[in-house]
Formats: sequence, structure tokens, C-alpha cells
Amino acid sequence: MPTSDEMTATVHRYTAAHSAGDVDAIAGLFAVDAVLVDPVDQPAHLGRDAVRAFFAGTHESIDGMELVATGPVRAVGEWAAVPLRARSTIGDTIYEVDIIDVFTFGDDGLITEMRAYWSSADIRASQIPTGRH
Amino acid sequence: MPTSDEMTATVHRYTAAHSAGDVDAIAGLFAVDAVLVDPVDQPAHLGRDAVRAFFAGTHESIDGMELVATGPVRAVGEWAAVPLRARSTIGDTIYEVDIIDVFTFGDDGLITEMRAYWSSADIRASQIPTGRH
Repeated sequence: MPTSDEMTATVHRYTAAHSAGDVDAIAGLFAVDAVLVDPVDQPAHLGRDAVRAFFAGTHESIDGMELVATGPVRAVGEWAAVPLRARSTIGDTIYEVDIIDVFTFGDDGLITEMRAYWSSADIRASQIPTGRH
Repeated sequence: MPTSDEMTATVHRYTAAHSAGDVDAIAGLFAVDAVLVDPVDQPAHLGRDAVRAFFAGTHESIDGMELVATGPVRAVGEWAAVPLRARSTIGDTIYEVDIIDVFTFGDDGLITEMRAYWSSADIRASQIPTGRH
């Protein structure tokens, strides 16, 4: 079983790979037979290839998405949970939403399941302030 | 199924009841056949009576525990997840730990399952600053 430090490091690699738009790096953190439910009220994506395809679609439709932890990773047993904020900018509008991701890990340290708690109803839109020179 | 606002309100009642040390109010938020796993690497408590007994023990051993949300509730489908911080003071020492609680709700709005992600290894101890008059 991975240690708490190893699970925490993988979660940080996960958010960094998202912010870099590196879908191969994201997919590489998941087990071949991993299960992804993102958000949790939507159908599951089954297997690493499906995980990669899902996030490739996400990053094609949301250019320059950043995913940042807003608090420490809670790692215990074979699980890690973390509060996150996703942010993207389209034109002069900033879109943000708060997320909690819960990861389950296998003995080899790969992610076997990830469940993402967030709702599209909670996406906030704000205008980039003008007049900043 | 409860609405997102209803699930969010129940989570806030849950944290307030903990901070008040009101174990009857806590237990009343759970379904009769609820499952509690707190933290997630420990055996489950099955049923409202077991939930009440578990939290009664918690509040007997940790006097004056406060449980405070450190970010918004993420409510979606039949679930709600929230980042929390538990704090207690024993003598001149403050103990704190970061937690993520994930709740599942039944059609009647009662909690059917709660899973708490935190580790006793992450409890931080600090001294109350002296010289504050």
C-alpha cells in the first residue's frame, strides 16, 4: 500500500498535470482498470483509456484550465481527499468552481478510483477587472 | 431527494451540533440504518444508535471540540462533501486536524452514510500564546 506521503504526492502530480493540460501525465497516474466518476452524479468512466479520453475532452473544451488545492490533502489508509478549485478564463470572464476529489489507491500506488464532488450549478463567473495597467 | 440547499443546510447543522456537543442533535440527522466510517480506515458504525454512541464517546473524551467548515459544501446528486477543521483545547495546548467529510442522503433528507477522511497522524499541537492580557 502506498504511504500517506506517496498518496499526497500523487494528488499534487494530478493537479499539476491538469494545470499543464498534460492528459498523458494525468492518465498515467491511474490504474489500467481505474474507475472515474466526475462529477459523482454522472456515469462512470471505466479504465485508464476512458479516463484519458474524458480528460482530453475536458481540456479541449476548457482551454487553460487550472486546478489548485485550496487545503491540505487528507491521506489515510488507501484513500486521499483534497479540496480543489478549478479556474478557467474565456475572453474576459473567469469561471471558477470548488471541488472535492476523493482518490482510492492500489498497492502499486496507482489511482484505482476517483470520485469528484462538484456541481455545474456552482460555477461562478466573474469579469476580469479592466483598467489594470 | 433533498435539494442541494437542503443537503448543505444539514451539513451546517451537523458541524454546529458537534461544536455544541449536542450528540442527540447529531444523531437526529442520521437515518435509523445509517453507516458511519470515521475515519475511513476504521470499522463502520451501523445504525443511528451506534452513531450516537460513537460521537458521545468522542465528545466525552474531547471536551469542547469545535468543528468548522474551511470551505463551501460541495452538494451534487445525493451527496455533499465539505472540508472541515476540528479543534480542541486541553490545558494550554490547541489540537487541530483537517478533515473532509462525505455525506450520502436518503430521499427523506436524512444522512444514510458519512465517510470521514482524516488521520490521527496529522493532528497538530500548538501552545496557546502567553502574555495575552
